[in-house]
Amino acid sequence: MRTTPSAGSLYQILADDLTAAISSGRLPAGSNLPSLRECAIQRKLSLNTVTAAYRLLEDRGLIVARPQSGFYVCSELAEPEFAFRRIAKDVVGAAQEDLMTAVLEAQQRPGHIDLAFAAPRGKKFYPGERLARMTSSVLRRQGNVVASYAMPPGSELLRDQIARRSQRLGMDLTADCIVLTHGAMEALHLALRAVTRPGDFVGIEAPSYFNLYPLLSALGLKAIEIPTHPQHGLDVDSVESVLAEKRVAALVAMPSVHNPLGCSMPVDAKQRLAKLLNQYKTPLIEDMVYAELQFLEPLAPTVKAFDHGGWVLACGGFSKTLAPDYRLGWIAGGRFSQAVQRLKFASSASESMLLSETVGQFLKSGGYERHLSSLRRLYFAQVATVRGLVAQFFPGGTRATQPAGGFVLWVELPPQVDSLKLFHAALEKGIVMMPGQVYAKGPRYRHYLRLSCCQEIDERFTSAVRTLGELAVKMQKDGNKAPKGR
Amino acid sequence: MRTTPSAGSLYQILADDLTAAISSGRLPAGSNLPSLRECAIQRKLSLNTVTAAYRLLEDRGLIVARPQSGFYVCSELAEPEFAFRRIAKDVVGAAQEDLMTAVLEAQQRPGHIDLAFAAPRGKKFYPGERLARMTSSVLRRQGNVVASYAMPPGSELLRDQIARRSQRLGMDLTADCIVLTHGAMEALHLALRAVTRPGDFVGIEAPSYFNLYPLLSALGLKAIEIPTHPQHGLDVDSVESVLAEKRVAALVAMPSVHNPLGCSMPVDAKQRLAKLLNQYKTPLIEDMVYAELQFLEPLAPTVKAFDHGGWVLACGGFSKTLAPDYRLGWIAGGRFSQAVQRLKFASSASESMLLSETVGQFLKSGGYERHLSSLRRLYFAQVATVRGLVAQFFPGGTRATQPAGGFVLWVELPPQVDSLKLFHAALEKGIVMMPGQVYAKGPRYRHYLRLSCCQEIDERFTSAVRTLGELAVKMQKDGNKAPKGR
Repeated sequence: MRTTPSAGSLYQILADDLTAAISSGRLPAGSNLPSLRECAIQRKLSLNTVTAAYRLLEDRGLIVARPQSGFYVCSELAEPEFAFRRIAKDVVGAAQEDLMTAVLEAQQRPGHIDLAFAAPRGKKFYPGERLARMTSSVLRRQGNVVASYAMPPGSELLRDQIARRSQRLGMDLTADCIVLTHGAMEALHLALRAVTRPGDFVGIEAPSYFNLYPLLSALGLKAIEIPTHPQHGLDVDSVESVLAEKRVAALVAMPSVHNPLGCSMPVDAKQRLAKLLNQYKTPLIEDMVYAELQFLEPLAPTVKAFDHGGWVLACGGFSKTLAPDYRLGWIAGGRFSQAVQRLKFASSASESMLLSETVGQFLKSGGYERHLSSLRRLYFAQVATVRGLVAQFFPGGTRATQPAGGFVLWVELPPQVDSLKLFHAALEKGIVMMPGQVYAKGPRYRHYLRLSCCQEIDERFTSAVRTLGELAVKMQKDGNKAPKGR
Repeated sequence: MRTTPSAGSLYQILADDLTAAISSGRLPAGSNLPSLRECAIQRKLSLNTVTAAYRLLEDRGLIVARPQSGFYVCSELAEPEFAFRRIAKDVVGAAQEDLMTAVLEAQQRPGHIDLAFAAPRGKKFYPGERLARMTSSVLRRQGNVVASYAMPPGSELLRDQIARRSQRLGMDLTADCIVLTHGAMEALHLALRAVTRPGDFVGIEAPSYFNLYPLLSALGLKAIEIPTHPQHGLDVDSVESVLAEKRVAALVAMPSVHNPLGCSMPVDAKQRLAKLLNQYKTPLIEDMVYAELQFLEPLAPTVKAFDHGGWVLACGGFSKTLAPDYRLGWIAGGRFSQAVQRLKFASSASESMLLSETVGQFLKSGGYERHLSSLRRLYFAQVATVRGLVAQFFPGGTRATQPAGGFVLWVELPPQVDSLKLFHAALEKGIVMMPGQVYAKGPRYRHYLRLSCCQEIDERFTSAVRTLGELAVKMQKDGNKAPKGR
């Protein structure tokens, strides 16, 4: 279990007791728990204690609350297996881009519920009011900021704060090696342009952040997929063989809280990876946009933390955690810093001083660290709850990741369920989901989907997941009935 | 003359009288005019009338004020000739990028005066306080804007305002064909990616906006330079031969107020160009970032205004005119709209709703139109004044453009003066200028430089232009003394 509440308190004893009952099968999957009040009377405990215990069980992904209906025991849900062990070329195609556009268009339909979008939506996930006040205060105090024309690398205050924060991830960045960017996406973009030329091969994870695919196409780059373990991330043996054969100009990876897998590479694997990069003089573009949303503290270090020769280009940002509207990212380009800074200037000049200084102030005030702590607890609970809903409503044989951080679940459906068909069926019911087909050119992720857990988990959300599960159950049944070879 | 003040007023009679004296040589170049007070006494006019007349002469580029020293008659200054009439390949090189980096670094040295940067610097050029108030008001009224995650195409309010404004430039854009971008630079970038592939040739002007060169390199594109007349812009006969031979995947040009030439194409040439694009089905990326800073009203239409088949991708922005810090640009991609929108999403997701809505409000309030009117007068006067300073201090044989809008001058030095050497000599004296070598790979613009006229023209500025002129005069003399063939 990932949470470590203070041991021995009454609510924990109750939670452990119920955990044991669930594990032993005395409380079977799908069964209804006593209501909070009933349980308090039965066990002679206060309502607060029972509430705390149930919450802990929810956090553990063992039970799930269904609005107006009480608490239910989740099914056991296995994690996806390490299925794709082959280094593969030619994995990016136009069909993916068309599908991404279809998803994007669906997301913009009014009235639809969006389980695809991987950015928190709703007030509770952001310190919006405090940020708004700080923005107004920067406007008041730095009267002429609107007329400023910042040049790269951008606000020193913010770069300095990013450098200080880097130590929590084991890095020792300095403000002068950091360039501010238009979101982490532009950071990836600049990094790729700094270390590759059109026609080059780039080593990527399987699956990768989906926006990487059109980015590679647009830059005329070809991808080599490196096997990626759903729990341990990039397979370092495979990386070594790719590097030794000099097959790639660069690697791109998310070793600390992967999107969509949710996993982090073990620290020793990161260390070994950093050593290989330095040995084979091959750059790694390390996307660490979710790294600060690791559920466990202290945070595990990034690959960059072990990079002695400057071969890692670290890319981060604040859109997932603090202020999506401010579109602020950053890149520490290691030995490629100067090229990155030039490219930034030539691509989009600079970032807004108003927005950068505001975020810099927020970080300096200590507000960001407090906010992140509460986000970690919140997303841990949200992900556990959605995992519980999947266990409850999705067909038998479904698997789902147990993320180490962030707010997305990677779900493996039974082989009879085609994710793209599910996408279209769900869309008819007003639900948008992210089909696995977005993550590869071929049929590799035909039975996978990504579920976002970063909005209010209310009745509407729960009901959408249930509908999605019911559609999948139906497809599974229809698939079983259908003649073979169809 | 480009200004059209109400005829027959006293100050204008005086101005016309002095203009005649200057034209006839009765007041020769370099001679001192009577002081305002002396003139008022001699001519029995009020001080206000004389001041207005002198200001008009300054606007006409005929006289120039030297702080603490009075008014002087400017030298006649010819305009650069149409010297480069050859269609040329392979015009972009790494040396240009190195030089641009050197200029960029010089611009960041504290205490230096920057005559190179083509973005207005100083409060008087922007409605900073009003924009700041509007920003705060958007924050107050749209409480949750910080937590919003806008998707392309971006704020409807702003797109709608851009569409309405497009009519002043003869266009009929609609909000739904516009995508907001991170400055006009990103618009160019997206446009190039939408219509080219690495390895393609792109037709560009000679010279072009200098950031286009690294952009082309970064995208793996090759440039074909199309002869560009310093007063009439792109040579349409040359364009036709390039299009007929299918030599380019696209064209990039600034037909309405060119940077660095300051010229606009005649309207009939724009019309013919649009026809050719449609005939040969070749896209034009039309950079109209200075188009609203045309000195003469009503504004001349853009090429896009004559584009019936959607072959023109119109790119604009607000960094030069309204709020450089807000980094807002836009693109109307014509028949490539959908590709542009996809690329925007994959490159940098979206623009800040806070900043977009603020600019949208500002436009809607009518404030932008008033602001532009005052900018046109201001830049007309500033450019005339700097032209006067060039006439006064630069070596004989120097030429300078007479811009149709905007705030840069393109200066042709005598052949003995190497612009790169001048750059280094000026840098030693704390002055940053933009050498012509930035604008081509070879020696083509060795004797040219761009001067920005978009800061306060105070004693410090005047003295910097004088120093630059004196350095050039010295180089010319040294060049004359040096043995041939050195």
